[in-house]
Amino acid sequence: MLDWIAFDADDTLWLNEPLYRAAQDRFVEIMAAYGRADRAREALYQTEMRNLPLYGYGIKSFGLSLLETAVRLTEGRIGGGDIGQLLETIQKMVQTPVQLLDGVAEVVATLSESYRLMLITKGDLLDQERKLAQSGLAPYFERVEIVSTKNAEVYRSLLAEHGIAPQRFLMVGNSLRSDILPVVEIGGHAVHIPYHVTWAHEVVDAPTDGYAVLEHIGQLPAFLARFAARRGS
Amino acid sequence: MLDWIAFDADDTLWLNEPLYRAAQDRFVEIMAAYGRADRAREALYQTEMRNLPLYGYGIKSFGLSLLETAVRLTEGRIGGGDIGQLLETIQKMVQTPVQLLDGVAEVVATLSESYRLMLITKGDLLDQERKLAQSGLAPYFERVEIVSTKNAEVYRSLLAEHGIAPQRFLMVGNSLRSDILPVVEIGGHAVHIPYHVTWAHEVVDAPTDGYAVLEHIGQLPAFLARFAARRGS
Repeated sequence: MLDWIAFDADDTLWLNEPLYRAAQDRFVEIMAAYGRADRAREALYQTEMRNLPLYGYGIKSFGLSLLETAVRLTEGRIGGGDIGQLLETIQKMVQTPVQLLDGVAEVVATLSESYRLMLITKGDLLDQERKLAQSGLAPYFERVEIVSTKNAEVYRSLLAEHGIAPQRFLMVGNSLRSDILPVVEIGGHAVHIPYHVTWAHEVVDAPTDGYAVLEHIGQLPAFLARFAARRGS
Repeated sequence: MLDWIAFDADDTLWLNEPLYRAAQDRFVEIMAAYGRADRAREALYQTEMRNLPLYGYGIKSFGLSLLETAVRLTEGRIGGGDIGQLLETIQKMVQTPVQLLDGVAEVVATLSESYRLMLITKGDLLDQERKLAQSGLAPYFERVEIVSTKNAEVYRSLLAEHGIAPQRFLMVGNSLRSDILPVVEIGGHAVHIPYHVTWAHEVVDAPTDGYAVLEHIGQLPAFLARFAARRGS
């Protein structure tokens, strides 16, 4: 049986990747004025990957990589006004009101009656706290863990810290790389709910066994009822 | 009696503020080429304070505020090359090897034999984790808490989460605002060890009772021995 259900946040509970896509579009527009539109997206991704060990995840890291790529792609020709535009794009990202995905509020409220709920997310500490506060979901989560990365070691140590046996733990998320595979690896359960867009960094080839896939979070309560019935029998 | 001793990290265990001062000096140099050296420091501080609720603490937030101030102070005249210089300054900050303050390694090792130790720090999640890993001190800390801000509510909830009574908890840090006053407010003990430079944001007028002041972390074990003797008698 399950005691704990943990949720990823970005693109599982609320919209995230589309904000990054919109900022990338703005970046490409600005780079177009310097004849650099064609290489802009790929160059930005390369910068992000190079900076990941230094800056980690989240909007501020993305912002610094955006600016660095702009300077490099334009060979220093980028004007201060365009830098200002990019900075404004970043500021808008951290000010965008959180937008819950369809069905999330009901499902989280319902499940909180039968399970202990946890939020496990990576990214900027303050930005994730802000989104959680705005979401109205904070009262449902008994534990909130904002971590710098999500791998098997991190999940193992989180579960150990809270005294949770992996077989009594189920993680729900949109990223195979961050939410599903490491949890399966440590002997936990996982439900993958793909989001319609995924950051390239989170895309992995993966086996399709050892975890469940749902199309929509609204299907989660029924899935958990079947899961409990199977285990209980 | 005390069970737990918690340490602040930046400018308590390792050097931090001097890195920011050096980056500010570089910023002023660059602004000087635009005739803006005189207003640079104050303008940067104003930007940081305005952005604090959006970006939080840490080097990435500082970096974004640095760039924003550069664009605004030069009215967009700043060149891409200078933006590149500022970005490089930020990258150097997150790559600077951690430098323990004098006496820290011995004191932390010694105290870990008699007390449970905790680290409570604010700032960038990944940057603080990196510094802790490099410091060699990680094995001494039973708990590591990286928080987005340090106020009475945050301390109260941390202590509650770990089941620690405030009167059995002592916090050691260099910032009256973040490490000392909120801990005193919730009924805990605190030892202020001022660092020779303090970020203006952390400077507050404060009462001088309710906590102890030491000149150097090396004096902490003797202070705690006296503290225990007084309580025990």
